[in-house]
Amino acid sequence: MAAELTAHELIARHRPTLDQALEAIRTRAYWSPHPEHPKAYGENGSLDLAAGKAAFDALLGTRIDLGQPGTDGWVDGETSPYGIELGTSYPHADLDVLLPAMKAGMRAWRDAGAEVRAVVCLEILKRISNRTHEFAHAVMHTSGQAFMMAFQAGGPHAQDRGLEAVAYAYVEQVRTPDTAEWTKPQGKRDPLALTKQFVPVPRGIGLVIGCNTFPTWNGYPGLFASLATGNAVLVKPHPRAVLPLALTVQVAREVLAEAGFDPNLVALAAERPGEGIAKTLATRPEIRIIDYTGSTEFGDWLETNARQAQVYTEKAGVNTVLVESTDNYKGMLSNLAFSLSLYSGQMCTTPQNLLIPREGISTDQGPKSYDEVVADLAQAVDGLLGDDARANALLGAIVNPDVKARLEAAAGLGEVALASREITNPEFPGAVVRTPVIVKLDGSKPDAEAAYMSECFGPVSFAVAVDSAGDALELLRRTIREKGAMTVGAYTTSPEVEDGVREVCLEEAAQLSLNLTGGVYVNQTAAFSDFHGSGGNPAANAALCDGAFVANRFRVVEVRREA
Amino acid sequence: MAAELTAHELIARHRPTLDQALEAIRTRAYWSPHPEHPKAYGENGSLDLAAGKAAFDALLGTRIDLGQPGTDGWVDGETSPYGIELGTSYPHADLDVLLPAMKAGMRAWRDAGAEVRAVVCLEILKRISNRTHEFAHAVMHTSGQAFMMAFQAGGPHAQDRGLEAVAYAYVEQVRTPDTAEWTKPQGKRDPLALTKQFVPVPRGIGLVIGCNTFPTWNGYPGLFASLATGNAVLVKPHPRAVLPLALTVQVAREVLAEAGFDPNLVALAAERPGEGIAKTLATRPEIRIIDYTGSTEFGDWLETNARQAQVYTEKAGVNTVLVESTDNYKGMLSNLAFSLSLYSGQMCTTPQNLLIPREGISTDQGPKSYDEVVADLAQAVDGLLGDDARANALLGAIVNPDVKARLEAAAGLGEVALASREITNPEFPGAVVRTPVIVKLDGSKPDAEAAYMSECFGPVSFAVAVDSAGDALELLRRTIREKGAMTVGAYTTSPEVEDGVREVCLEEAAQLSLNLTGGVYVNQTAAFSDFHGSGGNPAANAALCDGAFVANRFRVVEVRREA
Repeated sequence: MAAELTAHELIARHRPTLDQALEAIRTRAYWSPHPEHPKAYGENGSLDLAAGKAAFDALLGTRIDLGQPGTDGWVDGETSPYGIELGTSYPHADLDVLLPAMKAGMRAWRDAGAEVRAVVCLEILKRISNRTHEFAHAVMHTSGQAFMMAFQAGGPHAQDRGLEAVAYAYVEQVRTPDTAEWTKPQGKRDPLALTKQFVPVPRGIGLVIGCNTFPTWNGYPGLFASLATGNAVLVKPHPRAVLPLALTVQVAREVLAEAGFDPNLVALAAERPGEGIAKTLATRPEIRIIDYTGSTEFGDWLETNARQAQVYTEKAGVNTVLVESTDNYKGMLSNLAFSLSLYSGQMCTTPQNLLIPREGISTDQGPKSYDEVVADLAQAVDGLLGDDARANALLGAIVNPDVKARLEAAAGLGEVALASREITNPEFPGAVVRTPVIVKLDGSKPDAEAAYMSECFGPVSFAVAVDSAGDALELLRRTIREKGAMTVGAYTTSPEVEDGVREVCLEEAAQLSLNLTGGVYVNQTAAFSDFHGSGGNPAANAALCDGAFVANRFRVVEVRREA
Repeated sequence: MAAELTAHELIARHRPTLDQALEAIRTRAYWSPHPEHPKAYGENGSLDLAAGKAAFDALLGTRIDLGQPGTDGWVDGETSPYGIELGTSYPHADLDVLLPAMKAGMRAWRDAGAEVRAVVCLEILKRISNRTHEFAHAVMHTSGQAFMMAFQAGGPHAQDRGLEAVAYAYVEQVRTPDTAEWTKPQGKRDPLALTKQFVPVPRGIGLVIGCNTFPTWNGYPGLFASLATGNAVLVKPHPRAVLPLALTVQVAREVLAEAGFDPNLVALAAERPGEGIAKTLATRPEIRIIDYTGSTEFGDWLETNARQAQVYTEKAGVNTVLVESTDNYKGMLSNLAFSLSLYSGQMCTTPQNLLIPREGISTDQGPKSYDEVVADLAQAVDGLLGDDARANALLGAIVNPDVKARLEAAAGLGEVALASREITNPEFPGAVVRTPVIVKLDGSKPDAEAAYMSECFGPVSFAVAVDSAGDALELLRRTIREKGAMTVGAYTTSPEVEDGVREVCLEEAAQLSLNLTGGVYVNQTAAFSDFHGSGGNPAANAALCDGAFVANRFRVVEVRREA
């Protein structure tokens, strides 16, 4: 088919952005082409707040028909954690038809080369960016994130992570030149001379297994890394968070077709309730790459069983903040209170265990006992969430009944320093909104250990009393090594303790935030600069985003002949 | 300890070479700092031919004491395929002592940074290079390679592959800067500002499992890739090829100590006969990286069972050359004859199956029937090996009794077009020297398929009659997909057939050499330019050398704080 969008046009349009992204991953200074402010949208083809809301409303109750081959029925969609029925439905795929159809366009996609693939990916991201307001509602009503977070994390930040993956994929593919002339001297004889061609070739079909809480943010890196390296990509969304990824697939298919490629290079695999197609898909021979975000149990299953594929997993971990001393007690408390509250603690990066010496800590406001620190933190959380409107804007909704059940059970694990309370969302009365619980635990008690050494995903944190900073470091090390950690935080004014926590994090490969007291939180990472996870501890076998995340999604085939 | 070799001195000495290597892997033009000619040695501290031989002779009958912790006995060494007793012995390790000792120096090695690690590795390679003549004998008398090949492939070419791995490792680690200042605008408010530090951290101990045929060439990439990325490295040589790697470990330990690092960062694990320590080692929790060259069976075992480690394998494959047409019949025959003869076909890259249309091929000397092509090839091999001295120089010795047994059995698999004959090596009467056998097989016969679809490692090739070029392409595809291939060759003057074979190789990820008729052979690859294997078919899950080979040997840990 004749391309509506020529390669030339796409390169002209997006190469400058690609170059900026390449520079950003090299310097790791701040950069983003995707505006974070809702009011930045509405011009140059992007939907503003009202238009985005209208576009979302128009989706409700509709069938999202992606025009995929092998569609053998329709799957009902998800229910919003805010209590509204989305009423959307999605194609169900006959894999024996869909997967071969996805492979049909791979040769042309491979032959297009790294640069064209990159700019096609950037066009997809640009069109998603234009619909950020619409996506924000889709993310909000599947993940339970509050609107502003769904807008930012599900919109620009997710798009940043996708673009970052495209940049890494591009640079990895062009490390080897397309051709080389190789001439080896042979003394007095004629030199040996070969002409060599190097072609990045894809592995096959990449499978993206989406999660409930961050369908776009966690889904885009794998999707774009695989697509940009020449693979087809099948997206298997979490059954409770289909819409944002269905829209993503729709945009990708539209752009691919306009650029003259087979739209079936990107497809959706929605599943019927209880169908559990992830295991079936993950072991299909056509699937050669898997990107997964979710439970440790299924991540481990994939790593063990999907042997035909490269498997990139982000699983669960137990995140720790060491609270040893601070010269900004107030800043520390407010920073921690925000971290614990944001999206009801339903981030893989939210701190769970706060390790506090039982004799207390030194601060700029004098020594504070363990009990005082915990009480002051509880008060800080209470203050932050005292106003219901603000609380709703920060907490969002509890994403599913499992989280609610864990929250309710947590109060029985120890002395409750801050009880969770129910908050009403006047706009969405069906939303389950809860403030975080903080539970005191004695680090030396075995029954307490059973609690704090397990991930308790949701708005639950444990104030763990430890014997000393040294004791805390040992517990930190053991926690990362045995349970994994996406993040580690530490508050200390002691150079020795700082060295100690830094060394533990280097040895156990965990990302460390030190003494955050302002507007950056341990649970937030910025694309192009911060690594999300390390890939070196049990919480994840990959980091977003680095060379290792992209380098094995393709192989380089050499064709050589005499010159 | 005070370093005799300062970082400053090592950087001054080796940074120019590192920079040239970095440029070479980018352009993939010809480059090597390691001379291929035996007479190039003897100055600037390197051993010349006589001194190298004397140094090797002095090793015979000695105990190679590496001064390793946990040495609990001595392991007798190998017997040369040339029939001489080496009489060397090596330390046997108590792993519960050695492995912890190897970890002790890792922090300092990590903190030294990527550049210092690179130049320490280059110093190790330089000292090995100076002893190339000595290593040549060690490789010859373990692998059975003829002297000239042992000298080149075991010396400069192996050193090139090691240096290439160091270059890839270095560039991968410095893609992320050591530090970054991140400043995010906040409209009218103060910007958010963080100072970020990025530290490449090692995974742990890398295990190199050596092979019998190319102990240094196949061992150095993994050894240097792991060491240069901050890991300690334990070398487990093949029981028949210990000496070259024991000497390598000795040099590495000497350089590490002189540079002020713990020599135990590199150690040897020699095994007692039948001890089979590879499985034990491969699943030790301290072992986080494995580089393996050898059988498919054990490679698959490692990939399945050594789940705590990153596993890089080069296994077996079935290499194919498609013979469809040529405009240089004589050049093709002599090129193929050399490829089949070199080191008695005991290279993982040696062609095994020659696919030839049963109606024959077109050549610059007119049409040639299948029988003619096979007979002419047999004659070319015969001519090449007609002189015993030349034959000995090309064939080397049969490396072990298994290869000899396979060679003898091969004659029973079909009609013998060229019989293997025994050659006497006057210098080493104990050497088992055999010329290659060529067996005719009908590609359409099921019993023939059982033969040509299995790897028959050694001086055995099959002239497989196929129905057509299309039939050959399908068989090529199936062979690569099911059995893997390190190399593919093709002779064709037809653009359609060339396109077809190219497409099969791109889709199945196999490295292709087209129409080689001169002094470059399908079984040879040059570091810095050619990829050895693709990592994309069953013969190997990694390629030498690319970003994927090094990117996951370390992780990057970020430490961030408010600016």
